[in-house]
Order: sequence, then structure tokens, then C-alpha cells
Amino acid sequence: MSLDNFAIIESTLREGEQFANAFFSTDQKVEIARLLDAFGVEYLELTSPAASPQSRDDCKRIASLGLKAKILTHTRCHMDDAKLAVDTGVDGIDVLFGTSSYLREFSHGKDIPYIIEQAIQVIEYIKSQGLEVRFSSEDSFRSDLVDLLTVYRTVDKIGVNRVGIADTVGVANPRQVYDLVRTLRGVVHCDIEFHGHNDTGCAIANSYCALEAGATHVDTSVLGIGERNGITPLGGLVARMYAHNPELIRQKYNLPLLREVENFVADIVGVDVPFNNYITGYTAFTHKAGIHAKAILNNPSTYEILKPEDFGLTRYLHIAHRLTGWNAIKHRADQLQLDLTDDQVK
Amino acid sequence: MSLDNFAIIESTLREGEQFANAFFSTDQKVEIARLLDAFGVEYLELTSPAASPQSRDDCKRIASLGLKAKILTHTRCHMDDAKLAVDTGVDGIDVLFGTSSYLREFSHGKDIPYIIEQAIQVIEYIKSQGLEVRFSSEDSFRSDLVDLLTVYRTVDKIGVNRVGIADTVGVANPRQVYDLVRTLRGVVHCDIEFHGHNDTGCAIANSYCALEAGATHVDTSVLGIGERNGITPLGGLVARMYAHNPELIRQKYNLPLLREVENFVADIVGVDVPFNNYITGYTAFTHKAGIHAKAILNNPSTYEILKPEDFGLTRYLHIAHRLTGWNAIKHRADQLQLDLTDDQVK
Repeated sequence: MSLDNFAIIESTLREGEQFANAFFSTDQKVEIARLLDAFGVEYLELTSPAASPQSRDDCKRIASLGLKAKILTHTRCHMDDAKLAVDTGVDGIDVLFGTSSYLREFSHGKDIPYIIEQAIQVIEYIKSQGLEVRFSSEDSFRSDLVDLLTVYRTVDKIGVNRVGIADTVGVANPRQVYDLVRTLRGVVHCDIEFHGHNDTGCAIANSYCALEAGATHVDTSVLGIGERNGITPLGGLVARMYAHNPELIRQKYNLPLLREVENFVADIVGVDVPFNNYITGYTAFTHKAGIHAKAILNNPSTYEILKPEDFGLTRYLHIAHRLTGWNAIKHRADQLQLDLTDDQVK
Repeated sequence: MSLDNFAIIESTLREGEQFANAFFSTDQKVEIARLLDAFGVEYLELTSPAASPQSRDDCKRIASLGLKAKILTHTRCHMDDAKLAVDTGVDGIDVLFGTSSYLREFSHGKDIPYIIEQAIQVIEYIKSQGLEVRFSSEDSFRSDLVDLLTVYRTVDKIGVNRVGIADTVGVANPRQVYDLVRTLRGVVHCDIEFHGHNDTGCAIANSYCALEAGATHVDTSVLGIGERNGITPLGGLVARMYAHNPELIRQKYNLPLLREVENFVADIVGVDVPFNNYITGYTAFTHKAGIHAKAILNNPSTYEILKPEDFGLTRYLHIAHRLTGWNAIKHRADQLQLDLTDDQVK
């Protein structure tokens, strides 16, 4: 069943680099890659080597680290970009079909023969070099369905490893995602990747529904950083999949490392981990209402679907008393190694 | 169609008061109520008057403000609590069925006759006083379906205004929510309310799927504050519903007030508005990638599903240059009246 057979394509070093405030140095990229590899993500996706000489050098550097995670880079569907990418030594190339202006033509159905010709040339070249290749459209949920399926079926037949569905603008809702992926699942035999933006708060749910419908790969970034308010956050996806199958997630990933990865990236891009972050938010395991606290003491699963100890964290039962309350929060913040002033705590 | 006929039950003054760090004074409660009323939420839900004499006085105070929003309070399904609630002058009572220990018996089917007897007594009393009444189970997604439907059908027949489905532990996924609400929609004629926690990142998506399946009311809180990492955030639900029907949402709510409500509540409970918050997060309308920026200049809807100007906000096109980048973020933070130091900006 695909829900137990998913892989994470961690895109902090590609989508995350598009976050307004992200300007990673090479050393920072290497450290992020090492931490994510230690956490256990199956893939790391890097900015296109065509973006700049620095991006190209960084691809080469990370591809040569000998990580367990497969290293991908993300390029336009052009032969020039593909050749540059192959030369960096990455394991695979995530090819993106066109720009918005191309997509508009695409959705009007004008340029399908051209797109297909281009896709075949690029995909066959990448495969001939022994690399993994993905083909993805942009803004899939505002594109013409028949055109999409026509192109995807063609690239599937010539042996693409994955096709991608992207909710580039964050407009899709969970049942739409389920339906589109389900339809695509009936058309192609290759793997299916989902990339979802979070503008309307559905990125995690959409990723989950994509997996339910037969997708195999989900794009994430640490804390969800990316264009605008970002994409599916790594920790949020882990929380959702843990709720589905805790044992599997404990085996696949080094869960206590999550907080370290998040704190490291948050620090570099100059943001605070949100107070309500999944799993590691500072109140995620705090219980306040009297009924809740009492039940939790009897049996934590009465009000907890995630076990804090699996993530190297601890539960906190809040006594609803004004002064002990603040101190207790401070204690919790200290447990989480959050560097808060008393004013921030209050 | 129910998706265009929903109402928000804003529970910052009930669920939000269960947030670890929330200790509202009466004056703060009044100001939150006034702001949310001005924003246009249809209901305000307040902590049970049985919780403390202060809670009782606060219910009376807010019920007497003459707001447009209907005032609800939230109590156990007990006659003592119901009488106390009626005396406060609220417009309606959200009755919660039992505690976890009751629920365990309930899910074993031992006490259904007792529950039904209790529910009938309380509901008929509240209706006899001319008040609106809702009956909700707790932890609905880990309860026995047949027992749930049996109780809901009974309370529907005696004239309850709404029944509630609560994902108390945040375990439900969107298609489960859709299926349960759809099933319930076939069993009861009254309104259906959904209350969803966000432990695994699905609260907004689950609320949307509940509405798609026939629910009519969604519980929210400002920034999602509540037990643990909270419930469906008001701003996130607004973003999702706006993506469905922008015109409707512009008519229903005073959208430019959203940021003020959020900043006010964040300040009181001592948290920062998350960097990636829906709509008002400081990068929500920032576009960085060259392709994105270019397309946005031609037509904002290429990469935006929400119009910033509808929320009193402005779009920002990011030139990916290290120094202008930081300054630009600072400019954006200033636009949003976020009080950030330069270090925080960086």
C-alpha cells in the first residue's frame, strides 16, 4: 500500500532557497544536507546548476559527500540545463516543464507536440547517462486535465522514473488532490510526486491525500520554507504519517533530530520556530484543561496522538494558575532550548 | 450549497483560553470579542460559567455588549451547568457530551440509555428557555460510529439546533472527516459543527472537507490557539474559503481587520505571529524566484490565489540580492507593523 511506501524529497536546498530570507552559504548547505541525511530523508533536492556558477559548484560538492540520501537537482526541461546537471554528479534530475508563459500555451493545447518532443529528448538523454529523471508540470491544478494526462502518459511510456503534480499556487483542496492523483495513477505506471504550497493551509493534508491516491513521493522543506508562505513542512508531514503508522515512521527516520534540523535552519534564515509548530512547537505537548490533564495522567493516548518521547521531547501538564503558568512555560521553553526572554514567555 | 452557507464559531475565548499561555482579563476578553465581532464572525464561544465565578461574570458581561455575533458558552451536558449558563444571558449553549472516562463507556456502548436521557433533559430545558443548543461528542473519530449516530439521531429528533463532530486529538485526515460528516448528514436534519485540532497539520483541510460534506459551522480561534498546538486558525480558514469563493468572503468579513485581531491576541498571549502564517505571515506575498517575479508583474494571479489588497496588505517582489534582500524584508516587516530588530529580520 503506497501510504507505507512513501519517500520524502527534501527541498530545503531548492524550494527553501526561494524563501524570501534564505541566502545559504556553501558550508550551510553542506551542514543542512548532512543533518537531513542523518534524519533519514530519502532524497535531497538542490537548486538548478543553471542558476549560477555557485549553484553548480554546490551541486558538485553535495553530490560528492557520499550521503545515503539520493541527490537530485531541479532544472527546466532544456538540454542545456540537463547537460549541466549531469556534469555535477547528482543521482537524478527533477525536470520542470516550462515557465508560466509556456504553461499558458500548454493549457491552451497549442504546443503539446513541441512539449512532448522536448521532453522525450531531455528524458532520454538523462536516462542514457544512468540518472534518475522526473518530469513535472507547474500549476497542475489550473491546467487542462487532458493535456496533462497526454503528456504524462507519453513520458511514462519512454521510461521516466516519476511524474510530478505541483500545486504551485496553493489553491488545491484535499479531495481535488486525491481525485487528480487517482486519475493519474490509472494512466501511468511510474512513481508520482506531489509538491504542495501552503497558502490556504492544506499542504500537509494535500500531501497525505496524494499518498492515499497512489502518489509515492512528497516534497518538503524544513519548517515549510519556500516561495510565499512555503510548502509542506518536513515536521508536519512526519507528524501526519506518524499518526498513520508510528512504527514505520520510528524506523524510517531519526525523529529526535527533527528539532535540531529545524533550529539550525530557522537560525540561518532568521525566523523563530512558530509557537504552534507541529511536534516541536513549544506548546505541542502541553495540556491545560483540568479534564485533559487528569485523563493524560491516567493514559497519555486519551489526548495525544504523538508520543513526545519518540521525538526526544517531554509532555507537560499545565496547572492553570497565573504565576506558575508563566514559570512553567519558561521551563518548557528551556527544555526545548528556546532562547526566550521573560517578556516573550509572558 | 453548504460551502457557501457556513458560519464561524470563533472560540478564542473558550478553546483559546485553554492555550498554555492564555490568561485573559475581563477587559481583554471584551476587546477580543469586539474585534472579532467587527471582523464579522457569526458566533463567539466563551468558557463555561461553571469554570469559575470570573468566567460566569465574563459571560454575562460579553452577552450584554449588544454585539452582532451570537454569544455561546460551552458546558458539560449537565443540568447544573445548563442552568448557570442560561442565567448569564447568552444566546446559546454548546453542550459537550461527557469526559474521556464517560466517552470510554460510551464507546463500549454501556451507557447509551443514560446519555440519551441526560441529553434529552438538558436539551429540552435549554430550548424551553428560548436558547440555541448544540450537542457534541468528544474525540468523535475514535468513537463507535453506530453509538454516535444513535445518539445524534435522537437529539436531532428532539430539536437540537446543531450536532458537533470533534477531532479532539488531531488524528483525523481529510477523507475520514468527509466520510463521517457525509454519513451524519444522511442521519440528522439539524446543522453540523466541526471542531478540529491541528496536531498533524490537517485542521484547516479537515474543516473544509467537513463543509464539503454538509457541515455548516466551523470552530476557529485566532492564530489557532488552544490545547497543545491548537485548532483551525481563523485566518487559515478564511484563506481556504477565500480560495473557494473570494466574493463571498469579501462580503462576509471585514478582511483588513484580520491582522489587527491576530496582532492583538498574539500580544496578549506572548507569542509572535508565525513567519509562515496564512495571509499575514511576513512572507505570504513575497515572490523571489526570477520566473515568479516576472510572471507576477504580468499578472498577479499567475502565482497568487489571494489578493493582498483585499486584506489591506501589499505584494512584494523580491530581488534575490543579499543586501537589498534583507532591507527589503525589513521594509516588508515595517509594512506589516511587525516590531522586529535587525537581527530578527536577518
